[in-house]
Amino acid sequence: MIRRLLIANRSEIAVRILRACKEMGIESVVAYSQADADSLAVQLADDSICIGPANAKDSYLNMHAILQAACSAGCDAIHPGYGFLSENAKFARLVQECDLTFVGPSFGLIELMGDKTQARTRMKEVGVPVVDGCEDPLITAQQALDLADSIGYPVIIKARHGGGGRGMRIVWKAEELESAYIQARQEAKACFDNDEVYMERYIQDPKHVEVQLLADHYGHVVHLYERDCSFQRKNQKMIEESPCSILPEETRQNLLNDAVKAARSIGYDSVGTMEFLLDKDGNYYFMEMNTRIQVEHPVTEAVTGIDLIKWQLKIASGQKLTLKQEEIPCRGVAMECRINAEDVAHDFAPSPGKITFMHLPGGHGIRVDTAVYCGSTISPYYDSMILKLIVQAPTRLECIKKMRAALEETIIDGVKTNVEFLYLTLYQKEFIEGIHNIGYASILLERLKENGQFI
Amino acid sequence: MIRRLLIANRSEIAVRILRACKEMGIESVVAYSQADADSLAVQLADDSICIGPANAKDSYLNMHAILQAACSAGCDAIHPGYGFLSENAKFARLVQECDLTFVGPSFGLIELMGDKTQARTRMKEVGVPVVDGCEDPLITAQQALDLADSIGYPVIIKARHGGGGRGMRIVWKAEELESAYIQARQEAKACFDNDEVYMERYIQDPKHVEVQLLADHYGHVVHLYERDCSFQRKNQKMIEESPCSILPEETRQNLLNDAVKAARSIGYDSVGTMEFLLDKDGNYYFMEMNTRIQVEHPVTEAVTGIDLIKWQLKIASGQKLTLKQEEIPCRGVAMECRINAEDVAHDFAPSPGKITFMHLPGGHGIRVDTAVYCGSTISPYYDSMILKLIVQAPTRLECIKKMRAALEETIIDGVKTNVEFLYLTLYQKEFIEGIHNIGYASILLERLKENGQFI
Repeated sequence: MIRRLLIANRSEIAVRILRACKEMGIESVVAYSQADADSLAVQLADDSICIGPANAKDSYLNMHAILQAACSAGCDAIHPGYGFLSENAKFARLVQECDLTFVGPSFGLIELMGDKTQARTRMKEVGVPVVDGCEDPLITAQQALDLADSIGYPVIIKARHGGGGRGMRIVWKAEELESAYIQARQEAKACFDNDEVYMERYIQDPKHVEVQLLADHYGHVVHLYERDCSFQRKNQKMIEESPCSILPEETRQNLLNDAVKAARSIGYDSVGTMEFLLDKDGNYYFMEMNTRIQVEHPVTEAVTGIDLIKWQLKIASGQKLTLKQEEIPCRGVAMECRINAEDVAHDFAPSPGKITFMHLPGGHGIRVDTAVYCGSTISPYYDSMILKLIVQAPTRLECIKKMRAALEETIIDGVKTNVEFLYLTLYQKEFIEGIHNIGYASILLERLKENGQFI
Repeated sequence: MIRRLLIANRSEIAVRILRACKEMGIESVVAYSQADADSLAVQLADDSICIGPANAKDSYLNMHAILQAACSAGCDAIHPGYGFLSENAKFARLVQECDLTFVGPSFGLIELMGDKTQARTRMKEVGVPVVDGCEDPLITAQQALDLADSIGYPVIIKARHGGGGRGMRIVWKAEELESAYIQARQEAKACFDNDEVYMERYIQDPKHVEVQLLADHYGHVVHLYERDCSFQRKNQKMIEESPCSILPEETRQNLLNDAVKAARSIGYDSVGTMEFLLDKDGNYYFMEMNTRIQVEHPVTEAVTGIDLIKWQLKIASGQKLTLKQEEIPCRGVAMECRINAEDVAHDFAPSPGKITFMHLPGGHGIRVDTAVYCGSTISPYYDSMILKLIVQAPTRLECIKKMRAALEETIIDGVKTNVEFLYLTLYQKEFIEGIHNIGYASILLERLKENGQFI
């Protein structure tokens, strides 16, 4: 078993991981930047070590500083959390080369799934639906034009090594294609240091549905049901839930089975998520795989009762996954709201600052994951999430009502937040019916602005 | 359905109830004393109304002030919470006479179960085990002596209309009996305005095991399993858990069935708890019934996933209890620690004061019920509970480890608390084995004092 773990991350996920460590008897060491010296994670961990200045490039993305910290702090494993280096195959390989355990999949799997064209090809081979498109990078604009003609417009150009919505261009007609192709390559180069791009048919206004997977080093793979993460803006998820309320049972079973089949076929060996697009006709298509723990993992923990971080740690230690698929329950409905320090009226611009007073909800069916306390500061250096509010209830409507009540009593003074926007969302017909797609949050904001809100 | 509810209570239970109201669309009105004008319950409720000065006698125990408040605030129901007037049959009757709904059982049931000799008799008639003793009040000291001779020492003298450990005397030998009898009568008179007492064989160092019941107005009764509340001091519970870890399955089934049978036989019609003593030989005996919601109800909510307060409100509104016994799950193990503002070193003396800083645990499997926030005050006028920390996990050992980790990160500055005592308890062999009885907390404290702690 892991004895002493370096947590190479910050904020709520660092706290989430160190809590699991405390319960499992693993010593926790938090690697922190100078901006996070007073963070809750640093205060709660058994030990902590500074890895550099505030700028993430020099600290949370600084592989050598993190490896050095792990070695000098006497750790035998590194947990990368989410974001930062969590899906960096090179980092995972370096961790292994330093004789440390990387709490995540083998680096070959990160590499495979990080290469979006290769991932597409593998999924297609296994028989998992993928959107029409190309298997190889597009070398010339003419290639792109020919492919778009054969697929049919609209199409989307994506970065081969991209993710999270960056380096993408939607193209509605042939005249726009060449310049979009050039821009996408430039952006891909800037974001991912690799200008290769590929193309897919563009699916308009789909739902984002993803399957939580758990796999060990011995070929055992289970799913922990799906999450609907369609309430998002600019590829940033805001509300996630499990299960997906509008999925017909047959489609759902196929989706879950496909995700397990795909994970098994690549020999996946950790916590991971297969993301799919669900179109208006109920067809789903593989989008990408996240080879790490996700922000929204608590909704799955809420419906299954299974601690994903503990399993991730146990599996990384070489333990067998003892969960049997048929024994994993899916109880009621869970929902998560991400509460961010941001100014909804100004295009969700970050609103960093000091939390002067805070009251958070609690009680039956309520979970709060946060690293914020009365008097702590939301740093301008990192993402603006303040907390995750997770509720669970027997039915989706009860879940929505519980979330409304929980948001109603949430008080966060000192920074602007998206609480009111989330609260109003929970009263919208489309959201209550569960028919909201990934374009809905933007449409809703426009509608609310027309009514004089958030202006 | 109830439209507008007066919550005639304070602190965390008032918050617990108003949260349920918000989720159910019931308007909440908090009745508060002058000392609680700034309370969280007052701030969160839809409306609030002052019912008198700080002294509970003049506010939370002031029936007429509360009834007047309910009427003037336009309420159609009153929830009494726990303590105060929650088991006062006269109050329940007055509520009904004012054409208001009392959120609790019919007043006849409160009366029946409040009369401890009558309750004993009824239980015996139904075939539920009761401790050897008398069915009628003891009129003379000679009667008491004769009965003790026939039962065998030690015996315990209890107030007929008592409860919560007051008006009790344990008698070890005949010479002590007469004075104990007189003292018990005096104390019973002072506490309960009725000096009638009765006698039972005294069971030494039992476990306190209780069964959670839910019953409606149509004869449907279910149990929600049992709780072990043996970690207590001076009849004040400190740690409760569900299920009871050392109960053989056959005994457990008998206990649960007896509780349901007893509740059915008296026509019980609300949330309630049957309390039992479990002796060293595994025999259980009916102790008393609590005809109200209990402080420790969240451990049952954690293992069953069922919201007891919502059901209590629905049943009071005349709705049918639709839960089927065989569909009520008992998942893993849940435990509650009551964190109080008290000085363990000085016989748990209350330590009221202002909370200057507070950090409470959160995350997977953690629930906190509290009415305290950063900067709020623990009043000297009422009980000293700051919060209830509830954890749930697949096994009892994981549950204990989770509670340790949760207590470890709990910070409450400004008042003395029992956090350290609770924390140390979770490392004791007897507690880990689950063999602690109701005398254990005192023995543990002595042991810790001998080691130089809490002195």
